[in-house]
Amino acid sequence: MSRFFSHRFDSLTAYTPGEQPQDQQYIKLNTNESPFEPSPDVIKAVSSEEVGKLRLYSDPECKRTVQAIADYYGVKSKNVVLGNGSDEILSFIFQAYCDSDTPVAFPDISYGFYSVFARLYGIEADVIPLKEDYSLDVNDYCGIGKTVVIANPNAPTGMAVSLADIEKLLVSNPDNIVVIDEAYVDFGADSAVALTKKYSNLIVVQTFSKSRQLAGARLGFAIAHENIITDLNTIRFSTNPYNINRLTLLAGEASIKDTAYFESTRTEIIANREYTVTELEKRGFRVLPSKTNFVFAAHSEAGGEELYSKLKARGILVRYFNKERLSDFLRITIGTREQMDALLNTLDAILSERE
Amino acid sequence: MSRFFSHRFDSLTAYTPGEQPQDQQYIKLNTNESPFEPSPDVIKAVSSEEVGKLRLYSDPECKRTVQAIADYYGVKSKNVVLGNGSDEILSFIFQAYCDSDTPVAFPDISYGFYSVFARLYGIEADVIPLKEDYSLDVNDYCGIGKTVVIANPNAPTGMAVSLADIEKLLVSNPDNIVVIDEAYVDFGADSAVALTKKYSNLIVVQTFSKSRQLAGARLGFAIAHENIITDLNTIRFSTNPYNINRLTLLAGEASIKDTAYFESTRTEIIANREYTVTELEKRGFRVLPSKTNFVFAAHSEAGGEELYSKLKARGILVRYFNKERLSDFLRITIGTREQMDALLNTLDAILSERE
Repeated sequence: MSRFFSHRFDSLTAYTPGEQPQDQQYIKLNTNESPFEPSPDVIKAVSSEEVGKLRLYSDPECKRTVQAIADYYGVKSKNVVLGNGSDEILSFIFQAYCDSDTPVAFPDISYGFYSVFARLYGIEADVIPLKEDYSLDVNDYCGIGKTVVIANPNAPTGMAVSLADIEKLLVSNPDNIVVIDEAYVDFGADSAVALTKKYSNLIVVQTFSKSRQLAGARLGFAIAHENIITDLNTIRFSTNPYNINRLTLLAGEASIKDTAYFESTRTEIIANREYTVTELEKRGFRVLPSKTNFVFAAHSEAGGEELYSKLKARGILVRYFNKERLSDFLRITIGTREQMDALLNTLDAILSERE
Repeated sequence: MSRFFSHRFDSLTAYTPGEQPQDQQYIKLNTNESPFEPSPDVIKAVSSEEVGKLRLYSDPECKRTVQAIADYYGVKSKNVVLGNGSDEILSFIFQAYCDSDTPVAFPDISYGFYSVFARLYGIEADVIPLKEDYSLDVNDYCGIGKTVVIANPNAPTGMAVSLADIEKLLVSNPDNIVVIDEAYVDFGADSAVALTKKYSNLIVVQTFSKSRQLAGARLGFAIAHENIITDLNTIRFSTNPYNINRLTLLAGEASIKDTAYFESTRTEIIANREYTVTELEKRGFRVLPSKTNFVFAAHSEAGGEELYSKLKARGILVRYFNKERLSDFLRITIGTREQMDALLNTLDAILSERE
């Protein structure tokens, strides 16, 4: 830290992303990436010809990509805004809808970035514990008078809340924004996108990182009432009007138009997840009910840190959280069937050595 | 605007980027893009194989690209941080080094984003007028006790200050950060990068958008003392740890390593600028002394708005600022010799019709 750094950041601890080793020697099941390449249409769209056009700025209105997303979700282009990953969209939202008069509320166990944004922007955070079984009780957030941020499905638990529950949140907080962060929704939960037509206080956030194989392209978006999109564009144009680069705009457009590839890859991930859950349970793991492309699993005898370390030593990366209520668990990204079998076989070897 | 939008943004007016028509029917001399394609090495580096790897997150440490930039500038990798365009770097800097105790100071005529960041982050801004001849008097900023932000060369004037003047600023403000925004430095001004080894209060900001033909890839960077880079990384990892996408990291690395292409293209731009200045002066324009890839020129009789409109009607886009002290001028990006001849011929036609 330099002596010039603003004192309001004295207690700021940055977000710690999962390990990203650059040598590709691991079976990487630690940051919820897709095991599949992007759609072949993406590879066609990001052509050498388009790379040659990088001398020109990207379209600050992101028109074609916004329209393609709007078409897919059955909303208007004025209901969509793009971010450099959904993290940037969340950053815009925390700035726009939280301040000294409006605190933020989110669960104690959820995406770790929510508390980082609260500290970064000096926002009071009401951190509400999940229930004993890691489920979320929406009653905790009804009429709360704060900006509400809920990941649905939640991370790292993988558990989802129903649309009826989300509607309850929206109705009971008419004067506050409710953010539903749907990074993982395509793997089995119900999206709240349709509710944006009915509730002007709802923002749905999604990403191309998981179900659309574009983690490395950085593309996220929000769908909401047009007035909300106007707010978020005011923040965007006051931060970085060219926040999405040319090639990512092309990749996103091609990706969302290839619905067949999207359906086949997410279906395969869901099937591999169900297989993995069954096999982990056979081996003495408790697995929380997942609607995502990962599972959160705790072994009856071996602790999370031990298993994480032993898996890593054998070339398999998973994610471990050294945090209260989470330290028994591993968060395991769902990969190909072959990757999951490699994980299961390695776990068998590790567990048999313990006996 | 929605009724939920934080009232602290009541007076926020977003930055207005130059027009970015998507149909490519104009000779585009309005947003200071390069007329040249990126280096052939960039086009090789962003291969289909690499597009196929977009399923994986980018390296949050941006190691290879940071190292390539550090090597080029003769600094260490710990002295470099990357942004999603230099706008993002500036956004991090305004957050890190300005607050209710530390206002910001910058010239009245400069990059329009400085005042936007000040409003976005609620920072008191000391906006100091340039001199009558549009030059900057560094004495206005000596011992000012505020974070100082200077574009060198300045935009939209194109005029540069000397390194001796910058050193004067650094020495006289030992307890404040001095930001030198060198977006255009490669076209003829002296870079302050070497001074970062001597002054821990200096941050030099640069971009790949202009002299490296990558406006559409979005890549900027800062060079400073390692403690400053630590601060900026704390903000970066609290905002968007994966702020640079995979393909832009590759493009940036390939671009900075191709020094021959960089030298030949910037030399050609400088030659075209000198030609354009001479030709504009022949036609009755006053042209401020430019060290950038644009010229700022005012005609003795025809006003800026008139010329802007008539050029646009004839297929040539330049930038016009409807603002005090600037409205007589056009900001004209330097393109190829053919583009500049097209501009000059069109100006001839417009001016002869006025007679």
